[in-house]
Amino acid sequence: MRVGVGILGGGTVGGTLARKLLDDHEVIASKSGVELALVKVAVRDMAKPRAFPAEYATDDLESVVDDPSVKLVVELMGGLEPARSLVLRALAQGKAVVTANKELVAADGPELFQEAASHGVSLLFEAAVGGGIPLIRPLSESLAGERLTRVLGIVNGTTNFILSAMDSEGRDYADVLEEAQRLGYAEADPTADVGGGDAAAKAAILAALAFGVWVGGDGVYREGITEIQTDDIEFGRRLGYCIKLLAVGEDTPAGVAVRVHPAMVPLDHPLASVRGAHNAVFVEGPAVGDLLFMGPGAGGDPTATAVLGDVIDAARELLAGTQVVPRIQFGAGRLAEFEQVLSQFYIRLEVADAPGVLAQIAGVFGDHGVSIRSVWQEGRGGAATLLLVTHEATEGDQQAALDAIRSLDTVRQVAAAIRVIGS
Amino acid sequence: MRVGVGILGGGTVGGTLARKLLDDHEVIASKSGVELALVKVAVRDMAKPRAFPAEYATDDLESVVDDPSVKLVVELMGGLEPARSLVLRALAQGKAVVTANKELVAADGPELFQEAASHGVSLLFEAAVGGGIPLIRPLSESLAGERLTRVLGIVNGTTNFILSAMDSEGRDYADVLEEAQRLGYAEADPTADVGGGDAAAKAAILAALAFGVWVGGDGVYREGITEIQTDDIEFGRRLGYCIKLLAVGEDTPAGVAVRVHPAMVPLDHPLASVRGAHNAVFVEGPAVGDLLFMGPGAGGDPTATAVLGDVIDAARELLAGTQVVPRIQFGAGRLAEFEQVLSQFYIRLEVADAPGVLAQIAGVFGDHGVSIRSVWQEGRGGAATLLLVTHEATEGDQQAALDAIRSLDTVRQVAAAIRVIGS
Repeated sequence: MRVGVGILGGGTVGGTLARKLLDDHEVIASKSGVELALVKVAVRDMAKPRAFPAEYATDDLESVVDDPSVKLVVELMGGLEPARSLVLRALAQGKAVVTANKELVAADGPELFQEAASHGVSLLFEAAVGGGIPLIRPLSESLAGERLTRVLGIVNGTTNFILSAMDSEGRDYADVLEEAQRLGYAEADPTADVGGGDAAAKAAILAALAFGVWVGGDGVYREGITEIQTDDIEFGRRLGYCIKLLAVGEDTPAGVAVRVHPAMVPLDHPLASVRGAHNAVFVEGPAVGDLLFMGPGAGGDPTATAVLGDVIDAARELLAGTQVVPRIQFGAGRLAEFEQVLSQFYIRLEVADAPGVLAQIAGVFGDHGVSIRSVWQEGRGGAATLLLVTHEATEGDQQAALDAIRSLDTVRQVAAAIRVIGS
Repeated sequence: MRVGVGILGGGTVGGTLARKLLDDHEVIASKSGVELALVKVAVRDMAKPRAFPAEYATDDLESVVDDPSVKLVVELMGGLEPARSLVLRALAQGKAVVTANKELVAADGPELFQEAASHGVSLLFEAAVGGGIPLIRPLSESLAGERLTRVLGIVNGTTNFILSAMDSEGRDYADVLEEAQRLGYAEADPTADVGGGDAAAKAAILAALAFGVWVGGDGVYREGITEIQTDDIEFGRRLGYCIKLLAVGEDTPAGVAVRVHPAMVPLDHPLASVRGAHNAVFVEGPAVGDLLFMGPGAGGDPTATAVLGDVIDAARELLAGTQVVPRIQFGAGRLAEFEQVLSQFYIRLEVADAPGVLAQIAGVFGDHGVSIRSVWQEGRGGAATLLLVTHEATEGDQQAALDAIRSLDTVRQVAAAIRVIGS
């Protein structure tokens, strides 16, 4: 039985998917048992050359969704509108939808999945997190029986590329960013990547999958990588860490905590070896132990492969005529206040090289309930660099201590404060 | 809606699963949308203490399968019989079956899946390969649209533990095996693990998943790790490799090739960092790039988690009343003759330290169409050790060359011949 497929968006991923559907028709049918027939691809600019024959292109978005022979709509436009309206329009007609749009899922997930469920159709989104890495199905199905405790993800290839290059080549942030932009790894406006927004949307989705709790992309605490200095990459390495931008979801006694920030990752942690534009997700649970999923985080081919996996899955469900169980739960579980989250910090201070300074600083941390795990001091004539690694304490206490430290006369600068991830 | 579950086997995995079904009932229901009710657990010895309340235990295997309130049978006994008969009996009654029995799947896969399909029920087996690592669902669903080219797996935790310890501690095989047996990582009769039989069954399943071709456990070429010497681990490291027992499935122009053997793995390959009893599977495809799945390969908790994922999935399908698409295809694709497979070899020769020996040996390889990539010679008074790494050539040519080398007067011993995996 054939399933007609309509694609919204004819760019890199959409074009690759269209070509796969046309060229690999038989391989797909023999491996999956479903026949997929490409019907139409909606594009914005009809004049642009495409990876698929021109007869499939149209610039009438609604016509693809409404075409009676299209039973399955693949949304690859990105952004909130018109993607959102088109997805809702397809679901309302009982059509299955596959999307790679993390922004949309992170913003409107509960509403979209509610709509899909009420029409008994699939809404799949494997490519929204981790590009070509199969993640969502394992998290939602294979591990459905596990109380996961923590999910750590390198989910933004651009920032991992930048941090990896800063690390291996000792170059500074601005320099590497410029190269990444020239190579096409970073956008002309890199804010969504380097500011952590893209990772925050993916963190919200990962947390919903792992813990069944909805925080939404806007509810994720985020820090980007724009302040990371090569000094801290070097000092971190001496202390046994490398710096990664992590999406962190944790099930804590205070509730579920979701955040994105640069982190010192122990060099022997599997995530430390994830270099360049790769993505990886590390999952911890009391029963399952530690699992790592690693692969290409972006790119037309890997992403199109992930989308195609969803398309096949959704097509199977259409053919089976089954009422689909949503892959993601949006329970109203308790979210932790960020101030209550336990963090461990690496802190670099530029201080006066005078007697008693270290004791004074340690005292301030102690007053705020933060104890110091290790200290390393390097003097350079009148001034000194002080590296501290704290023990775990709440974010609230850590931040209060840092504020108090900042106001000390003997402290010239809190040059860096980067969270540390325990292994 | 509730689904009654019967378990065959009350050992480590079965006991853990039973306890999970009883204790984590609510978490499972809230995350998956299905209510699972444990009905009975079949055990062989009623006198043994169990991880679940005694009222659930019975030693009547058939009674669990036949119980009308059992809709889903979990087979965790291992071995071919009576597991095979009981699985077929459950399928014939239209009950879904979940198994972790790689031996059974590798031996009778096509028949079992045919039986499941003819009754329209699920037969799931996530835990049969890679213990707690979600592998089968990603391979069968997420990557269904991809023409995979190669699958490399570290799928036997016992041998990886032994090789890791030999590598990091410089101890020899017999010594480490004894320790592994003492720690419970290896059986009293370790043959299935160290001889490659366990890995071969898993390789057959991985190949069926990746390439849709059935070779069967018995059809997999295998070499174990019993001949691996610490010398070769050391020499390998100097050349930039570590030794792993790999399950290799390849889609070659000559057909699909499936084999298990120790291999020199480049130290910068992700599989090189998989240490101890961990498992990992590395998947290569032209579109998806390289993917790594890593996690615990065995153990009651991880395996029970994987089984529970299948149980939830099968229960969902039961509730949906859908005709299930089998997860695995058994096409009659072409299998490569092992002699035609391209291999690259690391070879250690003990030779007479006399003029012309190297030229003679290189000549023999050349006569058989095998060219040498690198040579390293170390003399020790009259005798010498010669390390060769060949370029790729067919297994047939490589073996013929090695036979000819063995018959040379100047060659005292072919001390090692280990395949090399390109990165």
